[in-house]
Amino acid sequence: MRLRNIPGAEETLRQYPVFVANPTLLKGKWREHFGNDNPIHVEIGCGKGRFITTLAERHPECNFIAIELKAEVILRAAQKTEMQTIPNLAMVQYNAAMLSDLFAEGELTCIYLNFSDPWPKARHYKRRLTYKTFLELYRSVLATDGHIELKTDNESLFEFSLNQFANEGFQLHNITFDLHQSAQAEGNVMTEYEQRFSERGQRIYRTEAFATPRQTVLSKTAADSPESGA
Amino acid sequence: MRLRNIPGAEETLRQYPVFVANPTLLKGKWREHFGNDNPIHVEIGCGKGRFITTLAERHPECNFIAIELKAEVILRAAQKTEMQTIPNLAMVQYNAAMLSDLFAEGELTCIYLNFSDPWPKARHYKRRLTYKTFLELYRSVLATDGHIELKTDNESLFEFSLNQFANEGFQLHNITFDLHQSAQAEGNVMTEYEQRFSERGQRIYRTEAFATPRQTVLSKTAADSPESGA
Repeated sequence: MRLRNIPGAEETLRQYPVFVANPTLLKGKWREHFGNDNPIHVEIGCGKGRFITTLAERHPECNFIAIELKAEVILRAAQKTEMQTIPNLAMVQYNAAMLSDLFAEGELTCIYLNFSDPWPKARHYKRRLTYKTFLELYRSVLATDGHIELKTDNESLFEFSLNQFANEGFQLHNITFDLHQSAQAEGNVMTEYEQRFSERGQRIYRTEAFATPRQTVLSKTAADSPESGA
Repeated sequence: MRLRNIPGAEETLRQYPVFVANPTLLKGKWREHFGNDNPIHVEIGCGKGRFITTLAERHPECNFIAIELKAEVILRAAQKTEMQTIPNLAMVQYNAAMLSDLFAEGELTCIYLNFSDPWPKARHYKRRLTYKTFLELYRSVLATDGHIELKTDNESLFEFSLNQFANEGFQLHNITFDLHQSAQAEGNVMTEYEQRFSERGQRIYRTEAFATPRQTVLSKTAADSPESGA
């Protein structure tokens, strides 16, 4: 997401109660920070923040952390909180490539990748947030039953991501080529980008990817219904 | 594939050396039939037979078996062989739903599903050749390192199939949304249907699905190149 440079963005950010200025100090201690043992969900690249703030409102039983590289962007997301303290939401300015600075092994339950930069040039494939080095990083901070949720409008990134997930031994689930027409549309929280994009009639791809194969879990749930495969 | 009824098709078929009239007698004995220990590849639904006959020509180091439900269809495929004996090719008229009548556990190395009927109505999903009951059947006759190769022009069938494979614990590999523009195009043998369809500029989806996760194999091969994910 591109925004013009906002002078003093970093200083302004510190005024927002949701903003965590020294997140590396909380590595392995996020449950203490939130004051409970609820599952921790992280969005990497939160953009203007609607997705993660909406989830935090709807799901008080979980904790949410938004991570963004640029101060200007995370400031826009922080502004959405209107200076409120939201007990289950934290915002962090950090580089996702150094995620293990922020989280201990197994500390996270879910990682959201929403409309990540597709880096369309072939020579830039290692920068895509689903490149295998990132997937290894995610796996290291995800719990055994943890998973990733990916949404994108970019078909090439989606194709690339499915292959990276599969090659790295993640178990794919609920793959959909047209989210808003699928069974997964119910309960879907749209990002700002997603709303704008889908209003033009263009479709959204989505998949879940589990860090550990979970045949047993799946065979007991919806795997038998046509929806599970459509 | 629809063809008009050909009177006496079954009798005519028996004249073709590639045709195996009593295939259930060969269950667990196909290596004896072919007279070697080469890997056995099966195409389920061979249509007019160009795919499997071309593969048999190109790969004398493997054995190939075409399976079709209808005598009229397998006859068209058999006619392609012009009454020749092709030592590494067999054709069988049989119902794929009873595949375990034909093959012993682990007898096959590869199963091809090319442009299978998409059964687009939701209530018919159990008839799709990638529905989980079929996948279980395929797994039972595939060797540990065996895999399935799926090609289709039908996006919904492709999406359904990816989910079924993933849910059943198959490891996906080389997923492509546009085969003829991908790295997998090289060496691709087109079916009659595929050629006609892609000449109209429409694209072909393809994936491989391994019966057993094979992280070790993958990490030693092309998993590091951009093509492996694109």
